[in-house]
Amino acid sequence: MIRDWLHATCRLPDPRSVAAARDRQARLTKPPGSLGSLETAAVTLAGLQGAERPVLDKVWISVFAGDHGVAEEGVSAFPQAVTGEMLRNFASGGAAISVLARTLGATLEVVNLGTVNDPGPLPGVRRAVIAPQTANFARTAAMTPEQLAAALDAGRQSVQAARDAGSDLFIGGEMGIGNTTAATALACALLGDEPRLLAGAGTGLDNSGVARKAAIVERALALHRDAVTPLEWLCRVGGFELAALAGAYVAAAQCGLPVLVDGFIATAAALAAVRAQPGCRAWMLFSHRSHERGHARVLDALEAEPLLDLGLRLGEASGAALAVPLLRLACALHGGMATFAEAGVSEA
Amino acid sequence: MIRDWLHATCRLPDPRSVAAARDRQARLTKPPGSLGSLETAAVTLAGLQGAERPVLDKVWISVFAGDHGVAEEGVSAFPQAVTGEMLRNFASGGAAISVLARTLGATLEVVNLGTVNDPGPLPGVRRAVIAPQTANFARTAAMTPEQLAAALDAGRQSVQAARDAGSDLFIGGEMGIGNTTAATALACALLGDEPRLLAGAGTGLDNSGVARKAAIVERALALHRDAVTPLEWLCRVGGFELAALAGAYVAAAQCGLPVLVDGFIATAAALAAVRAQPGCRAWMLFSHRSHERGHARVLDALEAEPLLDLGLRLGEASGAALAVPLLRLACALHGGMATFAEAGVSEA
Repeated sequence: MIRDWLHATCRLPDPRSVAAARDRQARLTKPPGSLGSLETAAVTLAGLQGAERPVLDKVWISVFAGDHGVAEEGVSAFPQAVTGEMLRNFASGGAAISVLARTLGATLEVVNLGTVNDPGPLPGVRRAVIAPQTANFARTAAMTPEQLAAALDAGRQSVQAARDAGSDLFIGGEMGIGNTTAATALACALLGDEPRLLAGAGTGLDNSGVARKAAIVERALALHRDAVTPLEWLCRVGGFELAALAGAYVAAAQCGLPVLVDGFIATAAALAAVRAQPGCRAWMLFSHRSHERGHARVLDALEAEPLLDLGLRLGEASGAALAVPLLRLACALHGGMATFAEAGVSEA
Repeated sequence: MIRDWLHATCRLPDPRSVAAARDRQARLTKPPGSLGSLETAAVTLAGLQGAERPVLDKVWISVFAGDHGVAEEGVSAFPQAVTGEMLRNFASGGAAISVLARTLGATLEVVNLGTVNDPGPLPGVRRAVIAPQTANFARTAAMTPEQLAAALDAGRQSVQAARDAGSDLFIGGEMGIGNTTAATALACALLGDEPRLLAGAGTGLDNSGVARKAAIVERALALHRDAVTPLEWLCRVGGFELAALAGAYVAAAQCGLPVLVDGFIATAAALAAVRAQPGCRAWMLFSHRSHERGHARVLDALEAEPLLDLGLRLGEASGAALAVPLLRLACALHGGMATFAEAGVSEA
């Protein structure tokens, strides 16, 4: 089976580095716990990097783009052509994630998994084209098993490239008109939730548009109700970019590379990855709680406590990129502050 | 009267730059509003800097340190000696704010307004010593009118230095054992709230410690009940660093320098500044909602929507410093993203 790699063992965080980092935090010149979530983040990263003082110098961002057959149901405020058009914008540096990656000094890899108006080869865009788009999952399975395997593998390849480049952190992002509908269907299937509770405005639907989207998801869940495993659901109602993200998250955990999860779509992919391979949860940090309706619920299901809550709803890995400076500063504080003893400061 | 400057007019944000920035935001390649609070921040900064595309290259941080007579009531988990000891730690680069300022490339000025164990002259520490400490406001007024004027003026001098250095943003921070008690008293006085609703754990009091702190604040509010104006309350129950922050916020608004407000104590000082000079509110951005119990209430009173909520409770301007990268990225996105027309991307 071509996706056998998916079931290989995930690595475990290093408990000794966690203990050493926690001990160090208690000795730094501040009231214990007063740096809140940044202390937790530094200690978690210590465990993932196997180092008392973690660093986030090299950040790798992969944005996976793919089109969705379900777009023909009119589930997006934007035309489907935008997916391919945005590939050009990513490549030419004008998209939000392009600006963020540049400003952060992060590596940005864009992966074309299949777009209806394919822009062809572009600098900085890796071609891993599976098909022009998925099939409309309101009528049939979104992907064939072979397409699912190819998409999962595209994610694994990005993680391999990130690891080969010596990255300290992997961020996955997505672009695909219609993909909040796919993510909603996937999350509802995995959580057993009703579509009307998770369906949101995406890029800008009005209330009747959201109700329509929920109805389409409901129809799809009924159509595919014989699906059982997380991977079967991913195949039936997912998308190329959702599957690539899920594959990346599993591969990262297998090689011990921490990941920073972005918004609703990335988190739905993370949920699928965790349901398929529970051991990959330990390697996930969560960047933000987005404005998209279903995100909080999926985060809760993963017991995730994201760093930011800025009302974001853009995708493209933008929310994760925005959290990178906080994680870097968490590492700088953890590694650079003086202890009470070093500074000659009295303790409580 | 030596604090006449405090009543000079505040400048007004530039409505044309706000309109131009808002128009630009609507043309960038993303769903309108999808960058959430970062869009608001970029548009607000445009108005404050009088530029369609604001920048935050030069950030100035002043940390005001001062001791509190009320510390003798046993209101802190740390001994009073820590205020002076931390001055050394700021100067030698081991404190949280030292690490953050260094990492951000921000200028850090530390101002000694008066500490019981005065460390004397230190590199990077400006001496503006008013007295070893305020008086215990549970027994008498914290400051004389002359001391209040000197503290307000110390804040103005820091803003002047920031402006002379060409700073794009001013951040004020504080250090002073006992100062959450002073900030609680000030906030309760200005908001008419009961101390038990605003008193929090500070650097680490237990429940009985918090109850004691609330009782001391209640006693102080009764003792000083004839105070009327915000400045009278600042004089009676404030502290040198609280007054310096309030003076800095007013002075910044008078010269048109945006400020980024830190945690509970800085926000209490901001409230006093706004009550004394309502025009200074427009120049305030808010960085974070801290873990300290009273902070959310004071933020609400200022109709402030801070960027971060990380469970911080350190002070020293650390929370504001942590928000700087988000504001810088907001500016980078606003100034650097392509428009739909530039990128040839279809609109909704």
